[in-house]
Amino acid sequence: MAVPIKPGRASSLILTQAARPSTFEVEARNEKGERVLTPIAGEHPLTLYLDRRELVTLMTLGAAPEALALGYLRNQRIVDDIASIAAVQVDWDTASVAVTTLDGQHWDRPEVRARLEKRTVTTGCGQGTVFGDLMDAVDAVALPADARLTEAVLYSVMEQVRQHESIYKQAGAVHGCALCSNAGADRGEIVYFVEDVGRHNAVDAIAGRMWLDGVDGGDKIFYTTGRLTSEMVIKCAQMGIPFLLSRSGLTQMGHAIAERVGITMIGRCQGRHYLLFTGGERFVAPTATAFA
Amino acid sequence: MAVPIKPGRASSLILTQAARPSTFEVEARNEKGERVLTPIAGEHPLTLYLDRRELVTLMTLGAAPEALALGYLRNQRIVDDIASIAAVQVDWDTASVAVTTLDGQHWDRPEVRARLEKRTVTTGCGQGTVFGDLMDAVDAVALPADARLTEAVLYSVMEQVRQHESIYKQAGAVHGCALCSNAGADRGEIVYFVEDVGRHNAVDAIAGRMWLDGVDGGDKIFYTTGRLTSEMVIKCAQMGIPFLLSRSGLTQMGHAIAERVGITMIGRCQGRHYLLFTGGERFVAPTATAFA
Repeated sequence: MAVPIKPGRASSLILTQAARPSTFEVEARNEKGERVLTPIAGEHPLTLYLDRRELVTLMTLGAAPEALALGYLRNQRIVDDIASIAAVQVDWDTASVAVTTLDGQHWDRPEVRARLEKRTVTTGCGQGTVFGDLMDAVDAVALPADARLTEAVLYSVMEQVRQHESIYKQAGAVHGCALCSNAGADRGEIVYFVEDVGRHNAVDAIAGRMWLDGVDGGDKIFYTTGRLTSEMVIKCAQMGIPFLLSRSGLTQMGHAIAERVGITMIGRCQGRHYLLFTGGERFVAPTATAFA
Repeated sequence: MAVPIKPGRASSLILTQAARPSTFEVEARNEKGERVLTPIAGEHPLTLYLDRRELVTLMTLGAAPEALALGYLRNQRIVDDIASIAAVQVDWDTASVAVTTLDGQHWDRPEVRARLEKRTVTTGCGQGTVFGDLMDAVDAVALPADARLTEAVLYSVMEQVRQHESIYKQAGAVHGCALCSNAGADRGEIVYFVEDVGRHNAVDAIAGRMWLDGVDGGDKIFYTTGRLTSEMVIKCAQMGIPFLLSRSGLTQMGHAIAERVGITMIGRCQGRHYLLFTGGERFVAPTATAFA
């Protein structure tokens, strides 16, 4: 479900609000020979232009295209500061999102040109990323040492996500991400919930929303239905979020990067079960032993 | 599990056989405070060089790196004919795979240069793809009109896949693909089974193996654990396979492309259940009505 974008610090930004409908019905036939109307998830190409230059085509559910474009630019480290962005304008007739910077010449910056010249494409179910460059960025991340996650809050997050209305429940074929609070009266509750056909799009859209609303990651928890691969961990670190939860498993490189950056990573979160993999010093549970 | 590559038509090819171990054990702590040794899937960067020029970095399980590199070049339509390839050499010390063409100057071909110049990156949990270009290619695909899939063979494929030993059962965090026979004595049986951390890598590795062994897609069935998004359907069509099965759901664009190219697409294959979405004229079931 699309959470409406509430422009915060970036309130002078020109922003369309061009969410697409998320599900469509098609007819199928089941094993009994019955015709079944089946909801399926939307998938739309969206070509991102930065100061009139084509950068990438994202295949997206289209629920949060403006936040997706911003988060993509942020997580790929193509734009470093939302204050340099003047407008984000989605036009589905041309399947495009135009991001305009204040000076209109973002491409001319030497660091941007250098970054895009050595651009390669990573997969692992991922999208275009300058991998080595991202690892450098991750090494510069300092997550708050005193942040703590209690088992009670972990279970609260899992329950909130379970109850959340979702495209996945209706139509499948999407991944979901939730940014949850780990402080104050709404601790353990969902701040943003985004689904997309690509799991990296969902993460990027959350990063875009955090930018728009001026939200810091230090007192937050990140939940994803997707696997904890290297890129997922890198993006969570880049957003400054110390806690990464997933319903799914993890990869060796996801594990190695989480250890290196000191993220508290918990996988296989289902029902009352979970596996704490890294960063145990920040996790507080009744059963806790000296595991770190 | 890695099926050994048996060079077929391409037997003069120089080919390493550099599969990596697929799982690693890490220690985790569960909700009872118990230490649990947990197998996790490997994930390794593998940078693909074509005639000494860097093309892409793939994040892969590493079970079939040579086939993955070939399938990537095939499915991205960067190389059109395996006969033009002289060597595929994986070196994990440098995390690279070097593909060498016979003339050593593949980049100088105008059609390759043109294709890579307009290269954009698609996601949808996908990898770099020239999307518009791929759609053109799909429109040129003619799938065999007389191919038929019976429900009995569908159930056989589902059962074979269910019983197959897999990284997924051990460690999760991977997607699997199977190419299955739809002709002869081994109808309904698995020809190749590949898993990878990226679902597109698994498809590409199968495409690479088909190339290596000179295997045609017309009398085959493709099964994936992953979602039926646009790129998955496009790749299946490019491989000339008329039947696409998935345990998961589908997206609107996956559905639209399957209808356009005339693939028989069946989703939600689990146990004795399935949903036939497109191409019903090729599917033979006891319950079949005039659904097409």
